[in-house]
Amino acid sequence: MACYHSHCLLQPPRKKLLNSVDRCVDEALEGIVSSSGGLSLLKGHRVVVRANREAVRGRVGLVSGGGSGHEPAHAGYIGCGMLSAAVAGGVFASPPPASVLAAILSLHDAGASGVLLIVKNYTGDRLNFGLAAEQARGYGVEVGMVIVADDCAFDQPSKAGRRGLCGTVLVHKLAGALAEEGRPLDEIISKVTEAVKGIGTLGVSLSPCSVPGSLPSFNLPSGEMELGLGIHGEPGIKRLKVASADEVVNSMIDHMTNPASQSHLPLKSGDSVVLCVNNLGALSCLEMAVVTRAAVNCLEGRGVEVARVMSGSFMTSLEMAGVSLSLMRTNQDILRLFDAETSAPAWPNRSIVRISGRCHTLDPPANHSEETSQPEGPLSGVMKNALERICSSLLQCQEDLNSLDRASGDGDCGNTHAQASRAIQEWLQSHVVPGCPGQLMSNLAELVQERMGGSSGALYSLFLTAAAVPLRRNSDSSSWADAMHDGTEAIKRYGGADLGDRTMLDALCPAVEELKRLAKAPPGGHMAILQAAVEKSEQGAKSTCDLIARAGRASYIATERVTLSDPGAVAIAVILRAVLEALKEQK
Amino acid sequence: MACYHSHCLLQPPRKKLLNSVDRCVDEALEGIVSSSGGLSLLKGHRVVVRANREAVRGRVGLVSGGGSGHEPAHAGYIGCGMLSAAVAGGVFASPPPASVLAAILSLHDAGASGVLLIVKNYTGDRLNFGLAAEQARGYGVEVGMVIVADDCAFDQPSKAGRRGLCGTVLVHKLAGALAEEGRPLDEIISKVTEAVKGIGTLGVSLSPCSVPGSLPSFNLPSGEMELGLGIHGEPGIKRLKVASADEVVNSMIDHMTNPASQSHLPLKSGDSVVLCVNNLGALSCLEMAVVTRAAVNCLEGRGVEVARVMSGSFMTSLEMAGVSLSLMRTNQDILRLFDAETSAPAWPNRSIVRISGRCHTLDPPANHSEETSQPEGPLSGVMKNALERICSSLLQCQEDLNSLDRASGDGDCGNTHAQASRAIQEWLQSHVVPGCPGQLMSNLAELVQERMGGSSGALYSLFLTAAAVPLRRNSDSSSWADAMHDGTEAIKRYGGADLGDRTMLDALCPAVEELKRLAKAPPGGHMAILQAAVEKSEQGAKSTCDLIARAGRASYIATERVTLSDPGAVAIAVILRAVLEALKEQK
Repeated sequence: MACYHSHCLLQPPRKKLLNSVDRCVDEALEGIVSSSGGLSLLKGHRVVVRANREAVRGRVGLVSGGGSGHEPAHAGYIGCGMLSAAVAGGVFASPPPASVLAAILSLHDAGASGVLLIVKNYTGDRLNFGLAAEQARGYGVEVGMVIVADDCAFDQPSKAGRRGLCGTVLVHKLAGALAEEGRPLDEIISKVTEAVKGIGTLGVSLSPCSVPGSLPSFNLPSGEMELGLGIHGEPGIKRLKVASADEVVNSMIDHMTNPASQSHLPLKSGDSVVLCVNNLGALSCLEMAVVTRAAVNCLEGRGVEVARVMSGSFMTSLEMAGVSLSLMRTNQDILRLFDAETSAPAWPNRSIVRISGRCHTLDPPANHSEETSQPEGPLSGVMKNALERICSSLLQCQEDLNSLDRASGDGDCGNTHAQASRAIQEWLQSHVVPGCPGQLMSNLAELVQERMGGSSGALYSLFLTAAAVPLRRNSDSSSWADAMHDGTEAIKRYGGADLGDRTMLDALCPAVEELKRLAKAPPGGHMAILQAAVEKSEQGAKSTCDLIARAGRASYIATERVTLSDPGAVAIAVILRAVLEALKEQK
Repeated sequence: MACYHSHCLLQPPRKKLLNSVDRCVDEALEGIVSSSGGLSLLKGHRVVVRANREAVRGRVGLVSGGGSGHEPAHAGYIGCGMLSAAVAGGVFASPPPASVLAAILSLHDAGASGVLLIVKNYTGDRLNFGLAAEQARGYGVEVGMVIVADDCAFDQPSKAGRRGLCGTVLVHKLAGALAEEGRPLDEIISKVTEAVKGIGTLGVSLSPCSVPGSLPSFNLPSGEMELGLGIHGEPGIKRLKVASADEVVNSMIDHMTNPASQSHLPLKSGDSVVLCVNNLGALSCLEMAVVTRAAVNCLEGRGVEVARVMSGSFMTSLEMAGVSLSLMRTNQDILRLFDAETSAPAWPNRSIVRISGRCHTLDPPANHSEETSQPEGPLSGVMKNALERICSSLLQCQEDLNSLDRASGDGDCGNTHAQASRAIQEWLQSHVVPGCPGQLMSNLAELVQERMGGSSGALYSLFLTAAAVPLRRNSDSSSWADAMHDGTEAIKRYGGADLGDRTMLDALCPAVEELKRLAKAPPGGHMAILQAAVEKSEQGAKSTCDLIARAGRASYIATERVTLSDPGAVAIAVILRAVLEALKEQK
């Protein structure tokens, strides 16, 4: 039936990544079974059983199931220590009794001492699982049933009772651990029935979901959320304005534990709980984590001890963008069962550490940088001069660099360099230039990283950080050559560019090549080498006007528009020329 | 900047369950850390480290990270056998080098023999992690870096190279297992670098995602999907019409393995792979399972052996409704590392069974029902008469029952009973009535379950199934009384209703009470008891007009509208009267 409400016309049936509406449940089961090594499909039924059925011999077999659309429930919970089989109906539809019976008999045939059916409290499921149970009893199978009715939504539930929601997954776990321990059917039933009384669940959603081929299950006006809804998109108890995660979680836990409601979960300060934060389908993992934090904080704020937390997609409603909270009152016995190992693929890889009371912050590592005020040395003067010269040169050509950058980038190359220059000038006024050039490089690296910003800041900081290492050991001319080389290599390594890509490297690499000669230069030959390096650098910068940008800012625009030099390369040449001039003055 | 495109006006910024845009990353990290026992937060940084830092002593520590919005990446992969620390930036923004450095030094301080940075190939991450690496080297830490560039989208990737996507999670696993084995840094780097060459990823999405506080990252026209998009909502390679899951997966694997593309993954028949099906955020688990099936089938169809499958949310893009496929070429060595144990909370609870070649279907249990043709017996005739009488009576009052039902339900109660009656009439024409009344009850239970349908079918079938058990052992009058009792109890147990709830039980229970006297009845007193039971039943049915519906069809409508008898109860009285008449005729 077509829907002519205006909001429906704006919201066409949601796009889905499926092959066919009719086959989607069967194909999903095939996908679940074929992607995990421990599951098998019963031919002719929508029944998944443990591949290793021998493991149930002499133990109670556990069967759950219900409508599809709640994946990973229930097939994902099959494994050692959880379910032995799961029966799926159509999307949001109860499975036929014949399939439930096939699941029961399959476990009976494998030698199970009895079979427990874990059923969510919906009339269809109760009747169909009940019918299969009666049939199986007719064949001599010892069958028991536990009905899970954990919904905390309604103050006065109807005769049909509270609905079965995500708490069912917790029941799978407890019953599974008991069965694995070899407990008899009646003991499992009585223990699980007791535990079920201590489980409550409430959901909230920002969106409806839609059964494949159908329109959304309900419509939520923009800015509203639905509280207490069922996992088939049944209406909840009320609509709320979208509020903060903390407020929503607080309202949910208020409602779940309100003694005025017939379906509340009694919970008082000093109680201990397992918290399950369940993604109803399409909430982002970021939101899930924020909601989880809110729930832990809210419970701890009420004096409730959070013993364990599980957060993820456990009992979904197709692509509903919502979350449900389940709380299970716990004690040592329940915690042992909850923590027991299981091979079920949808059970999370959980730690068994108590959540509340654990300190989960660590102090950051102690400051590894050397003392801030390093002594001056013989080189302090010349290095200070060179720095001042660099800064004034870069400030002088600020507009030229901007202009070159406007042809190929966002036109701020001069500004970025001027920003760094002014930061260095300020620093020089309040700091002594350390005598160790390695230390100076580290100080500058930090300054540039903080004050220059952008990729340029990161690249210069990288250069200076790598260059600092050889200059901490030694400050002879050979170490300076190493420093220039190591700095340049760091830029290449992390920046992803190389010589000829129309970047600062086109001015840097030729200079580094020339400076390598410093290692073997005769005394007094250093200035000539530096002079040559600066000239090579300037030629390199100039040559970039013929290059095609393959990295950096200019690589995003068409080649023919770039006929000027790369401003980053020009800046390098300017810096090196400034150093040369400063050293010449010193002589 | 506001967006005035008409499609944007129709799509307001998505509702999110968060507290604040500014704090959402910090709160999500708190949620992740507070919900798992094995993680700690480094004060003053968005850095999560293993709570048990001592475990890295003498081993290589592993650090990964990057922008947030990809949860559970990367903090969820911290644990024994995977990462030692994860550094988070803002949503979709690279983390600052100072935080990366704090993570490195924290592991160094804990005694790590070296630190490996696993970095997704984005310029910001390369520079920021690179800078921290160089700084850490300056402090004497042995640091290595592996860049993951697994994107198969672009035929001719730019100089920046292929992007880092979900394959990074596979790299975490391999490197983590090697580190846990105590391998030195250089060996881990060389092995992982080799493995990275065999990893490829491609994504597809049905929807964009939106950074908290911002509009969606892109707009997809209705009915289209985006192929090859990045995990930050960057545009992909092309838009496709929404197609079937099988077709989409086939196109994806075609593209990923196409030798004409520079970023393809070489894959040929006979190769073995690990398949990772990654939910980009908001795809339903049902769709995920269908896509997983499609991917396994597609690969196997090309002769590729699927060694392992993981399917879930591993590297998300907020709430993007999409999926990515990652393939990792594998061998025994890689499989050993992939299968190694880990305590990382986001790693799935996987089995280590080979997927391809495994038979994952089982034959259903052998037919447990007795042979179909049971011999006639002395009771066959009278039972046949009774059945014929029941059917004709129900067909006679079809319209009366419908009319009663129109006052309180959907008006088809007569039709449903007529349907069952005709099914029994047909059955009687082609079958012999077995002499064992228990067998007849079972046959009828099956027939009614299949042909009557709805809740009524399930309830009658339940009654008959439970009633069959005492009548298989014996067919004396006491067993008939037990049968009526057990059948009624089964309806109560699974149907969730009781006497006085205005259901069929209001006619059934008084009759059962009366029939209990059969057990001690003198010979010849049976008919009087049956007569009384029928009258009680008819009174019970009549009395329902004064009852408030608390279960069943009539419980959903207002009380004052229901002043007629419950049609379900009336039908029971009709059936019992028919049996009485048949027995009277027999005498």
